Amino acid sequence: MNAFYAQSGGVTAVINASACGVIETARKNKNKIGKVYAGRNGIIGALTEDLIDTSKESAASIAALRHTPSGAFGSCRFKLKSLEQNRREYERLIEVFKAHNIGYFFYNGGGDSADTCLKVSQLSETMDYPIKAIHIPKTVDNDLPITDNCPGFGSVAKYIAISTQEASFDVASMAKTSTKVFIIEVMGRHAGWIAAAGGLASTRDNPIPILILFPEVEFDQKKFLARVDAMVKKHGYCTVVVSEGVHWPDGRFLADTGLKDAFGHAQLGGAATVIAGMIQAELGLKNHWAVADYLQRAARHIASRTDVNMAYAMGKAAVQFALKGHNSVMPTVDRLSNKPFKWKVGMAPLNKVANVEKMMPDNFITKDGYGITQKCRNYLEPLIKGEDYPPYKDGMPKYVRMKAIAAPKKLPAFKL
Amino acid sequence: MNAFYAQSGGVTAVINASACGVIETARKNKNKIGKVYAGRNGIIGALTEDLIDTSKESAASIAALRHTPSGAFGSCRFKLKSLEQNRREYERLIEVFKAHNIGYFFYNGGGDSADTCLKVSQLSETMDYPIKAIHIPKTVDNDLPITDNCPGFGSVAKYIAISTQEASFDVASMAKTSTKVFIIEVMGRHAGWIAAAGGLASTRDNPIPILILFPEVEFDQKKFLARVDAMVKKHGYCTVVVSEGVHWPDGRFLADTGLKDAFGHAQLGGAATVIAGMIQAELGLKNHWAVADYLQRAARHIASRTDVNMAYAMGKAAVQFALKGHNSVMPTVDRLSNKPFKWKVGMAPLNKVANVEKMMPDNFITKDGYGITQKCRNYLEPLIKGEDYPPYKDGMPKYVRMKAIAAPKKLPAFKL
Repeated sequence: MNAFYAQSGGVTAVINASACGVIETARKNKNKIGKVYAGRNGIIGALTEDLIDTSKESAASIAALRHTPSGAFGSCRFKLKSLEQNRREYERLIEVFKAHNIGYFFYNGGGDSADTCLKVSQLSETMDYPIKAIHIPKTVDNDLPITDNCPGFGSVAKYIAISTQEASFDVASMAKTSTKVFIIEVMGRHAGWIAAAGGLASTRDNPIPILILFPEVEFDQKKFLARVDAMVKKHGYCTVVVSEGVHWPDGRFLADTGLKDAFGHAQLGGAATVIAGMIQAELGLKNHWAVADYLQRAARHIASRTDVNMAYAMGKAAVQFALKGHNSVMPTVDRLSNKPFKWKVGMAPLNKVANVEKMMPDNFITKDGYGITQKCRNYLEPLIKGEDYPPYKDGMPKYVRMKAIAAPKKLPAFKL
Repeated sequence: MNAFYAQSGGVTAVINASACGVIETARKNKNKIGKVYAGRNGIIGALTEDLIDTSKESAASIAALRHTPSGAFGSCRFKLKSLEQNRREYERLIEVFKAHNIGYFFYNGGGDSADTCLKVSQLSETMDYPIKAIHIPKTVDNDLPITDNCPGFGSVAKYIAISTQEASFDVASMAKTSTKVFIIEVMGRHAGWIAAAGGLASTRDNPIPILILFPEVEFDQKKFLARVDAMVKKHGYCTVVVSEGVHWPDGRFLADTGLKDAFGHAQLGGAATVIAGMIQAELGLKNHWAVADYLQRAARHIASRTDVNMAYAMGKAAVQFALKGHNSVMPTVDRLSNKPFKWKVGMAPLNKVANVEKMMPDNFITKDGYGITQKCRNYLEPLIKGEDYPPYKDGMPKYVRMKAIAAPKKLPAFKL
């Protein structure tokens, strides 16, 4: 039997480490798993029978996936509809699986992808095709349930914590005659996990005045500006970590500026620019702002070792679960203790994972709404622990690209 | 005799390595240099007699400056007027120098600071106060003349090259169904050195379709959009590195959007948002944008080892020059060869350095205006070579903060 592996949704700094875990573990079980086919551009690769034959990649290339960011086989934003709504796509999947003797389905993604994986796992019964479908958790948003955390998140958290600390050092040293407030915008449309990581920038050794704007907390302009003003008066400067998902009491995102550009089109937002504008206009404080965007989720150069290890372990466990006959499950990170940090691989049924969004617990945000609690720190700190540097050549990381040779097609074309 | 050291202008990831070079070298010459006083917040510390006594800092703390970003003693944006215009300030400097027995003046900054240092060096003659004034080069903008490059630049260049490569990997893997263009805005108001570093993201092993928008090249919207369109059609995606200094043919910055926010105030710009807006509006291509801002110049976590070594060497050489009796000079990096990369410390007279801005040579930019030439690569590549990781504790870099104890004041207060 062969296996199919695909990457789905927004990529991360460590999703390829999961791919590495899947492929290396499959290669160690050649008596049970023949080839691992990777979908080119995620599930689209399965539908279009564009299957990358990973057996054509050298052991060194596969090993290098562990330190290469992004989705090496291509990811996609493509949601399979329900079986009832689009039987055609499921029938096509089965055709492709049959044609290439695929008995294992590994899907590496977030909440939507878990739903797709669940549906595929059900093919076994409802459409009489034997398949073991395992979901491999991945998301920078850290919003999957049951698992302690999601691979991808720890590295973003480390990047945001370090970048926020470094930029805060910068503004602190300039504040006397120049910039007083530094603003950094981070990802997280609904849940403030990444914004919370900005709070880690302030440590016992290097305390930094930080205000965090969470999507979970309604934005109160007057209160916020008063806090900025007070912090600058007390410390000479402050840093604001703003989640892209921060919204006004009426639910509108701050990033939705309502501005028009020279062409009459809506100006693309950026919550940071809005915050910067109001600090300048209302408080007259010189400020600088940064938007980390893809830099944060691609920053393999400063990935968390804990995160890389977990991502690899999830890929490895997925294959082991499948070989043991499990179907419709997801490996999880089960935290055993904080200090020392201990965890093991667990297992969650997919129907408990799909379409459930894990929000930050209320007791992770301080009462005033602008900071993280000790409980939150205890949760986050182990996830950013350890560095896992890629190898370098002439000053640049040695990231790998796949040869990505497709298996010969056996079926007629399929229109998406 | 004691020494005075100050940091000036925008800080960098390695300016503290120069401070480390100054202080460690002075400590090795205790028979000639008594104390090193650091101006709190740059030259302001000298005027206000706010002198940090670096002898109160442990050897370990001083050594840790080598891996700590920002200006550990505080920097400032404060330009001394000319001697004729503001004799009062120069007289105050001499009063402070006399009161604290300061015979060496080390000023760590860019073009404006070189000018200040030059004026101080002239005090010796015009105001009959013996002082050796040495300028220590520092700028992320890389725009000082004579020296091959400026400490601070190599680390920004490395950060931008790596970040651009990582984000390009990200967009490449998503391009099939999602984002097609990634835009990153970098510093550089007049000279495109940092933007040029974005070109290093594309390597032989990992070629990436990149368009660079330099401040040196007039922005031609139609031509630019046609290039983006062609690149996306050919490669499926592309990356745009835009300098904050990019301007329209009439000289207006792109970042000057002319927009008003909800309060009627001018919307803070960001050239990246303007580029993103036009790509969306005119080409209908989904895009993402990032603004690196302070993150790029504070990113000590991925500093260039070459840059760190040069920054330290410049600080060390400054003290050695002073001890040899030089005045009104600046240590320089003299490049001896590209492959293998060899350089030595040279010396430039300050009157040839002050107020001269080094622009990119024309032959560093490709004829079409959107890329870097091989000559430019040959210049840039050695500067980003080598990694120089800071030590870590619990997932965060161990950056140091000074105790920053001021020497007792001996003079009446001075109003700035």
